[in-house]
Amino acid sequence: MINEQYTPEEPIAAIATALAPAALGIVRTSGKNAIELASKCFSRPKALLEAAGNTLVYGWIIDPESKQKIDEVMAAVYRAPKSFTGEDMVEVFCHGGTSTVLGVYHALLDAGFRPAQKGEYTFRAFINGKADLTKAEAVREIIGAKTDESRSRAANRLQGALFSEIAAVKEELLKVLASIEVGIEYPEDEENIAETFDDSLLRQAVEELKALSSSWQAEKLYQDGAEVVLCGKTNAGKSSLFNLLLKEDRAIVSDIHGTTRDFIESYASFDGIPVRLFDTAGLRETEDEIEKVGVERTRELIQQSDAVLYVIDAACGFTDEDTEFLKDFTSEDALTSEIPLLLVLNKIDKTEYKDAAECAAKSVPPQWKNLPVFGVSAKTSTGIQELAKATAAVLQKTCAASKEMVGLGSERQKNAVEEALESCNHALLCTKEGFTLDAAVQDIEDAVASLGELTGEVTSADILETVFSQFCVGK
Amino acid sequence: MINEQYTPEEPIAAIATALAPAALGIVRTSGKNAIELASKCFSRPKALLEAAGNTLVYGWIIDPESKQKIDEVMAAVYRAPKSFTGEDMVEVFCHGGTSTVLGVYHALLDAGFRPAQKGEYTFRAFINGKADLTKAEAVREIIGAKTDESRSRAANRLQGALFSEIAAVKEELLKVLASIEVGIEYPEDEENIAETFDDSLLRQAVEELKALSSSWQAEKLYQDGAEVVLCGKTNAGKSSLFNLLLKEDRAIVSDIHGTTRDFIESYASFDGIPVRLFDTAGLRETEDEIEKVGVERTRELIQQSDAVLYVIDAACGFTDEDTEFLKDFTSEDALTSEIPLLLVLNKIDKTEYKDAAECAAKSVPPQWKNLPVFGVSAKTSTGIQELAKATAAVLQKTCAASKEMVGLGSERQKNAVEEALESCNHALLCTKEGFTLDAAVQDIEDAVASLGELTGEVTSADILETVFSQFCVGK
Repeated sequence: MINEQYTPEEPIAAIATALAPAALGIVRTSGKNAIELASKCFSRPKALLEAAGNTLVYGWIIDPESKQKIDEVMAAVYRAPKSFTGEDMVEVFCHGGTSTVLGVYHALLDAGFRPAQKGEYTFRAFINGKADLTKAEAVREIIGAKTDESRSRAANRLQGALFSEIAAVKEELLKVLASIEVGIEYPEDEENIAETFDDSLLRQAVEELKALSSSWQAEKLYQDGAEVVLCGKTNAGKSSLFNLLLKEDRAIVSDIHGTTRDFIESYASFDGIPVRLFDTAGLRETEDEIEKVGVERTRELIQQSDAVLYVIDAACGFTDEDTEFLKDFTSEDALTSEIPLLLVLNKIDKTEYKDAAECAAKSVPPQWKNLPVFGVSAKTSTGIQELAKATAAVLQKTCAASKEMVGLGSERQKNAVEEALESCNHALLCTKEGFTLDAAVQDIEDAVASLGELTGEVTSADILETVFSQFCVGK
Repeated sequence: MINEQYTPEEPIAAIATALAPAALGIVRTSGKNAIELASKCFSRPKALLEAAGNTLVYGWIIDPESKQKIDEVMAAVYRAPKSFTGEDMVEVFCHGGTSTVLGVYHALLDAGFRPAQKGEYTFRAFINGKADLTKAEAVREIIGAKTDESRSRAANRLQGALFSEIAAVKEELLKVLASIEVGIEYPEDEENIAETFDDSLLRQAVEELKALSSSWQAEKLYQDGAEVVLCGKTNAGKSSLFNLLLKEDRAIVSDIHGTTRDFIESYASFDGIPVRLFDTAGLRETEDEIEKVGVERTRELIQQSDAVLYVIDAACGFTDEDTEFLKDFTSEDALTSEIPLLLVLNKIDKTEYKDAAECAAKSVPPQWKNLPVFGVSAKTSTGIQELAKATAAVLQKTCAASKEMVGLGSERQKNAVEEALESCNHALLCTKEGFTLDAAVQDIEDAVASLGELTGEVTSADILETVFSQFCVGK
């Protein structure tokens, strides 16, 4: 299916920059006759046709039918195989107005290009050996990265670090395979070999696959982020805290406001984790119909969240309402009992305690002493950074995230690793339980194939479809 | 003031594409040592330093301090004076993720570039003789163009068509000046010359300046667009019409939703005019407090609009409510009496009349026969395109817009033309009323200076400030 849609060499065009008023925009093309076609809507066709690879040509994009001048541009010429896709390419750098970019794009379509499918450029790069699948997927990741940490992790994969890790495991498995096959060639010794088989290399591969597999949850955290809800009584200072937490390290995504007035949400970066932070309505029981809806929505939000910051006005101390919420939240049969909760004592500057620790020790009732507690002051900004870091730590804990290793970049990669892991585990079982080594060989070959699918050395149409259909157009 | 901020040759950097997830992004730099500085955060510094002008170099952007790899990029190298700014430039084409583009930008700042001011690139192009002011302003226009027609008008100015028109007028004025100066050199004949002075060329210049001056209102219509309000009774079918009008020719700007639920707005292109179209609440008098506010807002919207489409359910015919609204709207002392109003008879498919004309003739009460009437059917899409065109014609009429001539592109240009016009008119007066020709010479010299300011041949700091501070960063 993918191979029908994604036909390499066919001339394709796509708008590669975001469609919004900006200084510059890019329309990119690729295909066997890309330069020739582009010259049909270019004011200096000869200059374009004769341009060497990796050079820029000045000119105007011209509507091939009406001959109307559309925009003054620079056209970048790439000649196969030295281009992103490995094919001839022309990239047009035009002015960034929406109408201009669309005008240039349509002139190129009129000149004979067809609109590119999602991910079709990267697909061609893959087909032409310019990138393995881990690198291709990293391109998609890097575009969607919400924090510097997420981007940096994707950049590692783009550099090929994940590919190297996978290649190392594969190398180990191939060595195991070789050592077994020696035995199989001399069948008289087979039983003997099964008994004396040294499985240490196979065990090592299993451990590495396990580590890779569990890395995905952490990578997912950095890619997709987590939802953190600020809640507490009205006037506990939630909104001030919300604004301070955003200010502390504002994540690089535009605001999304709640569709209702019941809560406000925005993105922040908590120690590199993209956090979708919600400021909610108070939790007070109310007779007011509209407020009731707000309280109900807050409860739903809490149930879906990855962590909850419960804000208490430290100057007023714990109230019955706070106790009631915490009881409900932590009770064993509550839907929320598994969600990490941090107690935030706000307004500590207004209390008589000398620091956050003393405030926590003296004002938190005994039954809640086991919860993590943070003293902060939205007024003086005390403790805000620590709160963000602590929340990040709690989120990382839920998925054993580590900042050091290069992890997996997609669900697809994780599934491939788990298949390889299962095959290896089965191979280990075979060698232990005295099955014939033929069975172990089959398992290890399966594992190698799974890893080959991960990197794209072995491919099937549906894998390609999965990978490239998630791209944006123009990539 | 502008000259202090805008210091040419200093290395500057700016993000030139819209900050949103997209395939590609551009960070552009310019300055005397731009290539050298960029090489400090580039994985292949030597390749960059040695690159010829107008070529592309592959590599990675690297944080100059942490040495962390940020993104895999193509760097375009331009060497002075063959570049947009006329200085050395490096443009970095990176992946379009927000975090990536910001990462590349910050690496360049760390390497020694300073953030560019608004319009600073075009300012340098102007200073280095790459563009006159009409061309520079056209760059800003083309970026903000909301419809193809707006873009096409800006592209004409970008090509220098306006500059040529201005130059032609200036040429005429210089000829007039020359002919007078001949007279002044022979003062004994001065009186005689004043009497025999042929003012036809001066009159021609005045006519051309008048046409240019009046062109601005039309250009402004295509640049800024117009506000059109759909109103009428509830259930007259306003919302279906609204959607159809948008679908007909959707303008290329993102939706802006009203901050209240009282109305919805979106952009459409009516025959090339960017129209901000409002769908309003019904106009029915009501006891409901919330609805009352909605009706009040609709009235305010109508008072600010450039045209009103009043929708009537043709199947039901005119009601007292319709009559009341139209009376209020058209009454001489109403704030709305100057606003063009079009009657839209919707649902004509449901009436017994054979066509829109018959429907209009038979169902519009005599006192409203003088209003323009359009029969449409939101259900069958009949007459929608005609309605959009007719509305555009009404809008053009209010400002004598013409699609043919290359008009002025900014308020600043219009002011300069009007100053020139005033000086020329005064010169005509001088020659007619027998003042000394010295006075006429002074006037014509003033007119030439005004036109010089328009194109930027004569400049002052505050003019430059006005022009370039309206740009977006990166241009």
